Amino acid sequence: MRIALLGAGTVGSSVARMLCAEPELWGERAGRPITLAGIGVRTPDREIEGVPGELFTTDFEGLVDSADLVIEVVGGHDPAGGWVRRALGAGTHVVTANKALIATDGVELHALARAHGARLRYEAAVGGAMPVVAMVADNLAGDRILGMRGIVNGSTNYVLTRMERDYLSMEEACGLASDLGYLEADPSADLDGHDAANKLAILARHAWGGDFGPEAVDCTGIREVTSEDVHAAAAEGAVIKLIARAVGPAGPGDLPTLTVRPERVPRTETLAGVHDGDNRVIVDCAAAGPIEVAGMGAGGDATASAVIADVLAIARATA
Amino acid sequence: MRIALLGAGTVGSSVARMLCAEPELWGERAGRPITLAGIGVRTPDREIEGVPGELFTTDFEGLVDSADLVIEVVGGHDPAGGWVRRALGAGTHVVTANKALIATDGVELHALARAHGARLRYEAAVGGAMPVVAMVADNLAGDRILGMRGIVNGSTNYVLTRMERDYLSMEEACGLASDLGYLEADPSADLDGHDAANKLAILARHAWGGDFGPEAVDCTGIREVTSEDVHAAAAEGAVIKLIARAVGPAGPGDLPTLTVRPERVPRTETLAGVHDGDNRVIVDCAAAGPIEVAGMGAGGDATASAVIADVLAIARATA
Repeated sequence: MRIALLGAGTVGSSVARMLCAEPELWGERAGRPITLAGIGVRTPDREIEGVPGELFTTDFEGLVDSADLVIEVVGGHDPAGGWVRRALGAGTHVVTANKALIATDGVELHALARAHGARLRYEAAVGGAMPVVAMVADNLAGDRILGMRGIVNGSTNYVLTRMERDYLSMEEACGLASDLGYLEADPSADLDGHDAANKLAILARHAWGGDFGPEAVDCTGIREVTSEDVHAAAAEGAVIKLIARAVGPAGPGDLPTLTVRPERVPRTETLAGVHDGDNRVIVDCAAAGPIEVAGMGAGGDATASAVIADVLAIARATA
Repeated sequence: MRIALLGAGTVGSSVARMLCAEPELWGERAGRPITLAGIGVRTPDREIEGVPGELFTTDFEGLVDSADLVIEVVGGHDPAGGWVRRALGAGTHVVTANKALIATDGVELHALARAHGARLRYEAAVGGAMPVVAMVADNLAGDRILGMRGIVNGSTNYVLTRMERDYLSMEEACGLASDLGYLEADPSADLDGHDAANKLAILARHAWGGDFGPEAVDCTGIREVTSEDVHAAAAEGAVIKLIARAVGPAGPGDLPTLTVRPERVPRTETLAGVHDGDNRVIVDCAAAGPIEVAGMGAGGDATASAVIADVLAIARATA
């Protein structure tokens, strides 16, 4: 199975390193050889320790056309979405970590994949290595999901944790988060809640079906949260967390009720204990009751492990 | 897909009720019709609300031979193991909740399944509806599992929780657990740690491969735990929990180190907060760090939902 890797940022570098470090291990787990055929990069002089230099190319389209499976970790809609469509339209499988693309265009991309006999997976798009997409899409298929709630954005959780523990202002906590790489140069996707809304829309589609995207999420970010809010909550035994929450559709044809907003969470509740960049989701099921999954929400190697698990799942399913 | 259900105890009754209540839902999720063809029972006059009486039969072997997929929820080695072998040997898929059988004979049964093109799944054998088998076997395949620790026996956790919270003796707590159905008439599988050892052996084989069973687990149950132990731990900010713990093999060909024993867990740790019949497992991964999953460890409907998820997974994979 020839793999084309698009992107060599934090996640892409980890994927490349991990694939090149243990090809026999992945081949054994996949049931057939896994070969990293090339890495699409903007500038050809890119170097990653342990990764042969001849793998790098700026010819993204040629790379896509030569592969059996494309890993897309560039992110964003354009040009990444075009490469994903090009692959799926040619029957080439796709694994992506691109939550923005999947949140808005996932329904269309699944249809395109189906029409051309390709597989599309994106565990890494939600909650880093925490396997919540597989849980909602597959592992809980024997049940009726009633609702979900969780913390799915590590950056804002880091900011809120610092405000509470270290008595920082929003501005100070954001500065610290930026210095540590928790926040992007443009932090609005995190701070305004859009990243969490993207993830919630993806999970809700898997839980209940339907053709909707992040616009279906009533979304408020954390920008208006003040130190006073945080300490007033603490005085009442609570913490402020950016909670993504879904309640299943009231009836056939209805949409689920989806919100992302800062909530006061009593310290006795599990979600109050989610610190720094961690993620945690609780899925409420009719038969199974609450099922919980947690893990680091980000990080190159953690996210790369979810990407590689998807690659192996496709390799096994299409052997 | 014709389903034979063997056993109509707590889990079997829930499976039968759930399959009969919403056949269209399961058919849609499976990608093809799912039909409950019969239910093997010891006494033919069995009744389950919502389940047609003509489905019950005492002819287990005839039922197995007529099915595309067998659900085995009788438990134990004999005669359940014979029916499972009969099915797999004929190329018939098997879903089971039978931890004792899978812990001791899982390697042989997987080989038998492979030789005859059958699938074998048992998510319900570990942690009720909590999808920890799928997590270790599939979802974390893109990583190296370093170790695992968790609470995988709800009965003993219930007993220890009552001893700590309500100042009960071991004997009193066990009496209460029996009254509530947490403990079987013969409680030794739970109290002596063998049930937890079975589950740990199953998870460890999926994490690291190898041909071993529960005999590889160094196992101590909770019978020797006294109220004094529990309250001495409490005075030092800890709780006593029956912890199943695995450390990956030191080198190629080595076995993992597997223990089940009462441990003092500081209250600041996640596993200290697992109450009553709940289960929780933390899987430590090289790339992803700790990944955690939790849920109710038992209960008819919860376990049945895991059984049905396995049925749907096989139906989709073999369509």
